[in-house]
Amino acid sequence: MRMIGNWRSAAAFRVRIALNLKGLPYEETFIDLDAGDQHRPEFRAINPQGAVPAFFDGDGPPLTQSLAILDYLEETHPEPALLPRDPKARARARSLAQVVASDSHPLYVPRVRRYLTDDLGLPQEAMLGWLRHWFAVGVTTLETRLTQEPGTGRYCQGDAISHADLCLVSLWVGTAIFGVDTAPYPTVRRIAEDCLAQEAFAKAHPKRQPGAPA
Amino acid sequence: MRMIGNWRSAAAFRVRIALNLKGLPYEETFIDLDAGDQHRPEFRAINPQGAVPAFFDGDGPPLTQSLAILDYLEETHPEPALLPRDPKARARARSLAQVVASDSHPLYVPRVRRYLTDDLGLPQEAMLGWLRHWFAVGVTTLETRLTQEPGTGRYCQGDAISHADLCLVSLWVGTAIFGVDTAPYPTVRRIAEDCLAQEAFAKAHPKRQPGAPA
Repeated sequence: MRMIGNWRSAAAFRVRIALNLKGLPYEETFIDLDAGDQHRPEFRAINPQGAVPAFFDGDGPPLTQSLAILDYLEETHPEPALLPRDPKARARARSLAQVVASDSHPLYVPRVRRYLTDDLGLPQEAMLGWLRHWFAVGVTTLETRLTQEPGTGRYCQGDAISHADLCLVSLWVGTAIFGVDTAPYPTVRRIAEDCLAQEAFAKAHPKRQPGAPA
Repeated sequence: MRMIGNWRSAAAFRVRIALNLKGLPYEETFIDLDAGDQHRPEFRAINPQGAVPAFFDGDGPPLTQSLAILDYLEETHPEPALLPRDPKARARARSLAQVVASDSHPLYVPRVRRYLTDDLGLPQEAMLGWLRHWFAVGVTTLETRLTQEPGTGRYCQGDAISHADLCLVSLWVGTAIFGVDTAPYPTVRRIAEDCLAQEAFAKAHPKRQPGAPA
């Protein structure tokens, strides 16, 4: 298995964690999103969307979209399971994952940040305000649901790691990179710190990938 | 089964189509997103995120997030299948679905439109420009992938309807509601029109739901 990713990409981070948890060896090639590598013809030929990660398992076209890749890994390498067996518990784990991967992360990816500054003419500070706002909305939603919903345990869904935790951690790490105040989120913090103390998460951390600032 | 939705919600639309295709009877209660019903305490108690749909199958907390609900329906009512059996084909169908549900739709939901006008002070016309831009990016990505990738058939993935088509149709219908030029997207149009000619899609159409403008 191999992947084209980027040190900072929350989506590539989630996939790395799943590969590590399942004990699957992989190689990752890192492209430079700030330099616009994702828009070069050679990468657009791989993923016309110009987004990482692009994931390869043997021959054939790349797989894209982090949650689709996570489901693929779950179906092809079911142990250890990263989704619960009970259908409603699975749906809740997936729903929490999508709070991050659908309702939060897509709002501040590089193409959106560029549109805000270059096309709408927003000052850099307003763009960063936008980014921090949607980060905070995402973390607040997780905190509220994890506090209110009975399914929460040691992890987001019960006492086993699921896709929801991979997504939670990918959001949590971003709060540090982008300077979002995390004091109001003790439940998210508890789960994130529990996960990040485990080697499968720690070695997937953005700051431990090539290209990350020292 | 029952659902709290809204006539215009692309997410509720996707779930209605899946329920119809699987022949599952359901009741839908419609709330008024323009009036802010989703932020009232009685709805926030159901879904703290303040987003539709909220889906109920018997007892227990609601299921949320359209793609999580689609996977739940797939797991609990596998026939007719709305995902292919082959893992890579499944991953592609899911990836195309997420181009819509993760990378496009979340960028112009009501809470984002409100933030652009009320918090960033953008004029209504600039907000509509934003909305049409991200619609167009989503449809362009689908068109490019469907044209370039060998997996495309009568539908997005081969010759059977999948989650990708439900998402494609939910995006396509939005282009008409919001006045996006659809001329450059013949493949998306072909698949959308094929689907919408089928009763399971047609009767789920936003314009056929209570609350829709005449």
